[in-house]
Amino acid sequence: MGSDHCPASEVEGAIEAVSQYGVRVLLAGPEERLRAELAQRGAGSLPIEILHADEVITMEDSASSALRKKTNASIRVAARAVRDGRAQGVVSAGNTGACMAIAKTVLGVVPGVKRPALAQVFPTLEASWSVLMDVGANVDCTPEMLAQFALMGEIYSKIICHCPSPRVGILSIGEEEHKGNELTKLTTPLLKELPVRFIGNVEGRDLYSGAADVIVCDGFTGNVALKVSEGLVAAIRQILKESLEKTLQRKIGYVLAKNAFEDFRKRVDYTEYGGAPLLGVKGVCLICHGRSNANAIKNAVRVAAELSQDNVSARIEAAMHESFAALNAASV
Amino acid sequence: MGSDHCPASEVEGAIEAVSQYGVRVLLAGPEERLRAELAQRGAGSLPIEILHADEVITMEDSASSALRKKTNASIRVAARAVRDGRAQGVVSAGNTGACMAIAKTVLGVVPGVKRPALAQVFPTLEASWSVLMDVGANVDCTPEMLAQFALMGEIYSKIICHCPSPRVGILSIGEEEHKGNELTKLTTPLLKELPVRFIGNVEGRDLYSGAADVIVCDGFTGNVALKVSEGLVAAIRQILKESLEKTLQRKIGYVLAKNAFEDFRKRVDYTEYGGAPLLGVKGVCLICHGRSNANAIKNAVRVAAELSQDNVSARIEAAMHESFAALNAASV
Repeated sequence: MGSDHCPASEVEGAIEAVSQYGVRVLLAGPEERLRAELAQRGAGSLPIEILHADEVITMEDSASSALRKKTNASIRVAARAVRDGRAQGVVSAGNTGACMAIAKTVLGVVPGVKRPALAQVFPTLEASWSVLMDVGANVDCTPEMLAQFALMGEIYSKIICHCPSPRVGILSIGEEEHKGNELTKLTTPLLKELPVRFIGNVEGRDLYSGAADVIVCDGFTGNVALKVSEGLVAAIRQILKESLEKTLQRKIGYVLAKNAFEDFRKRVDYTEYGGAPLLGVKGVCLICHGRSNANAIKNAVRVAAELSQDNVSARIEAAMHESFAALNAASV
Repeated sequence: MGSDHCPASEVEGAIEAVSQYGVRVLLAGPEERLRAELAQRGAGSLPIEILHADEVITMEDSASSALRKKTNASIRVAARAVRDGRAQGVVSAGNTGACMAIAKTVLGVVPGVKRPALAQVFPTLEASWSVLMDVGANVDCTPEMLAQFALMGEIYSKIICHCPSPRVGILSIGEEEHKGNELTKLTTPLLKELPVRFIGNVEGRDLYSGAADVIVCDGFTGNVALKVSEGLVAAIRQILKESLEKTLQRKIGYVLAKNAFEDFRKRVDYTEYGGAPLLGVKGVCLICHGRSNANAIKNAVRVAAELSQDNVSARIEAAMHESFAALNAASV
């Protein structure tokens, strides 16, 4: 209930997910209002259940006060459903900080993980994926946190992106090892000690170049990188649209090449990729953009369902447990 | 002499700049080699002069050792030409850290400026420009440094982007004041005290939205934002190209709409904007991407010429002097 277009995006996204993927959805929020929203869309008979929750965490709430005071908030009720086994994953487009705090508290943290973090996949030119983490869960990070992100991101890349031997890079401002800030310089020696294929510094452009399969950074930098990308995609679509409408000849060209633009849109539109999984908590938790539309919610539900199939969450947990044992042995 | 494609990009860029803009160019580097490069391109008679320099700072050199040991490096010789009044500005695509150290040492810093910083303009959807700074001169920043970037960026926006009353934002991970990292939270109170139109937090997407005219951040984050943008533009061009070549119909569409793509390319291609000016040093200094091609060098020479016309550098210096007096009075 805490997103920018809520509950319209959530209700429509749930209806689409249920219709297209054969999943069941539990909607957490004020029962009467949600029931009316569903009825209005003729979806009263779909397998969508409502979990009543009468509080809402807004974007203005701090994570700590939301956690302390709003114990019946929709996101909290949804997380409890996962903890209690009524649901296999939770999806939210609300306040990221509050979502994370609640997921940590209600679902619990995988033993050994210092801080759960948000992973975001980016499409690369080599028709594969790069995983960037953290993209906003932890704004001020220590080298030890980044080392853990590397381990979690590597496991995610293996299991979800089917990358057999992920190359792990650290996001910096030049390829040479001496280029970076205090955090990257202190993190590099730790990454060298880890049982991952560490390739050193990568740069902002490598989110898309395919030079690395996993890229670690603090959550502030990662969030800026993600939102710069979203903003640029939106700007480019707008610029192209205006430019293509300028003359009749261009308009005809656009009509002929329309499917190419649709391909393009699908590859760069963040709403196609669903939310970002919060790795390091027990269970599946996807955090979406505050401005998610129905398509983004639908895809996040799809990704959550995929993550819960084959017990992927438990596999990540087991693999992380193993890596962290190695990491702790290396005294990180 | 320290860039990735040097000296070909520099020599070709200089030839194009001299031919198209009626400027004169001094090339700093090994005299014989540069003379041969010019002769090979039939440019022996153009108004291009060579300043002999027999050392080269590479991307691997640290700024401090380059400054101490390579006193006859090409960038140093070029900076001296500006200091001595033989040239009005210096353009380099070499090692950013070394360029900056040399510009500070040889040209000197404007009184009151703690750290010169790199400004980069981004085209916005509102057909105007946003100035982002710092984009890489200072990786670890204090709140006081960001406050100075706000002042310098505001002056640059007024003089170069002709923005009468620039809106100044701080790059963060949410619009709400409590969202951000330690640095942004400590900087916000300082920005509120400054004689600028401070609008609070902006996000990564606002580089392109037009929500702010000046956006301040530390040089690490700014550099990542800049390079994410460059990487995404390159990826999008590639994806669109491949998609447009898939069928005959799409190819015909592309041919008809070709000029639209050319418009688009010009608006998003960083090589059209020349380098990033290093604000806060005495005189004009433009720092270009290490991978600059001839077009980027040509445009950087154009921008340097524009900046030196009408004594823009001195105007920035005077305006900054005034603002810093106000700033110091406010004990920042």
